[in-house]
Amino acid sequence: MNVLIVHAHPEPRSLNGTLKDFAVRRLETAGHTVQVSDLHAMQWKTTLDADDSPHRPPGTRFDPALDSKQAFEAGNQPDDIAREQQKLLWADAVILQFPLWWFSMPAILKGWVERVFAYGFGYGVGEHSDARWGDRYGEGTLTGKRAMLVVTAGGWESHYGPRGINGPMDDVLFPIHHGILYYPGFDVLPPFVVHRTGKMDSARFEAVSEALGQRLDTLATTPPIAFRPQNAGAYEIPALTLRADVAPGQVGFAAHVETPAVT
Amino acid sequence: MNVLIVHAHPEPRSLNGTLKDFAVRRLETAGHTVQVSDLHAMQWKTTLDADDSPHRPPGTRFDPALDSKQAFEAGNQPDDIAREQQKLLWADAVILQFPLWWFSMPAILKGWVERVFAYGFGYGVGEHSDARWGDRYGEGTLTGKRAMLVVTAGGWESHYGPRGINGPMDDVLFPIHHGILYYPGFDVLPPFVVHRTGKMDSARFEAVSEALGQRLDTLATTPPIAFRPQNAGAYEIPALTLRADVAPGQVGFAAHVETPAVT
Repeated sequence: MNVLIVHAHPEPRSLNGTLKDFAVRRLETAGHTVQVSDLHAMQWKTTLDADDSPHRPPGTRFDPALDSKQAFEAGNQPDDIAREQQKLLWADAVILQFPLWWFSMPAILKGWVERVFAYGFGYGVGEHSDARWGDRYGEGTLTGKRAMLVVTAGGWESHYGPRGINGPMDDVLFPIHHGILYYPGFDVLPPFVVHRTGKMDSARFEAVSEALGQRLDTLATTPPIAFRPQNAGAYEIPALTLRADVAPGQVGFAAHVETPAVT
Repeated sequence: MNVLIVHAHPEPRSLNGTLKDFAVRRLETAGHTVQVSDLHAMQWKTTLDADDSPHRPPGTRFDPALDSKQAFEAGNQPDDIAREQQKLLWADAVILQFPLWWFSMPAILKGWVERVFAYGFGYGVGEHSDARWGDRYGEGTLTGKRAMLVVTAGGWESHYGPRGINGPMDDVLFPIHHGILYYPGFDVLPPFVVHRTGKMDSARFEAVSEALGQRLDTLATTPPIAFRPQNAGAYEIPALTLRADVAPGQVGFAAHVETPAVT
């Protein structure tokens, strides 16, 4: 497979940097082709602004969505954005690897999403009708590709448990899994999460990296999270609420994941 | 009151820019003193990196947390970070105003949080013991201050309803409300959310801005979201899970909000 790792940590000698190097070796040893977007090393431009739409008429009001659409369609996006889009189209699997900062991805990675997932590429794809609300949530430019998060967190696993103070990790990551990855079409694999990173000795690092290695070994075969596709009948359109007979009475993020039939 | 508005939109003539200008006028007319951190106009440095710790010994490994702690304690943080911390200490109320991009705040605002909420200021405050796990989630540097989000979203209100495809807006915003604002001590007010921003004419803008105005008029008195304080008995320490007798059986984000007693 072609694997793209998007890596967001400012220090190459960090736990994150070391796990990224480990992942590259493991994947290449298994015969995969790997590209790494090391955002800090690339000095990635984090902020989406009018400089990303250099061809728009001077003096006009900058519209982040419509100017992104215009630049994408006209093929005059900045090179750094176009290159990352090409890597995404090349990849069979994409790994976003980052430390959890303030319960989300670091700003540099968020800015990668905002700039690379342009209108017409990451959103604003497909037609709207009585039966469809665009190609999104299970359909879109990146359909057929797999994505997985590799996340480190300082807090303990219990802090992210069902009744943990930070909220369940599945819910903390839902806006990324569902809103950023499933939205443009990825099949999203369960995340690989390392907790309590302040307590990392060499024995634990060996165990963590081997556990990551096993997830990488099964990157092509691990079943994805069973998010419900938007346009396959589970949702009313255009309200985009679950039909009454789907997960009846259930509310919140988990309602958007299919539960296996009880047999 | 002293009110700080942190504003994150690249176009001054946008809906967000216009609502920001409206908010400043409304607050000043009511007698409040207002400062605005207009992150794009300030050319805010979005990315947290080793340049934020200019005094650390050359060649050492950059640790985002510990180097932030060292710079904060030694008083040699970059000026832009120290200035924003002073604004936060000055403020009685803080408004974060932004468009919802990919189900979170724009990268430029996330980077403001990451850089300004330094170790020793926004986190890493207070002692850990059998009875306390630091001054956080209801205690901390910003205790006694109020915070409110003003958010615009392209999607419809139903898309963010209890069974809406994007997830309930309260859950989408929980990592910000609870994890970014309640964490360092803010009392967090219910958000002001504008949906379906693509459909905005002057009549609707009048209605929206007047609704915002009413929220600003009651900034000092609106009851905050009743998040459960970490160190007041609701949580086991150090597991930081809800005690069995608190919201028994409930899981997920909503379990961390006190429900009013049924009378």
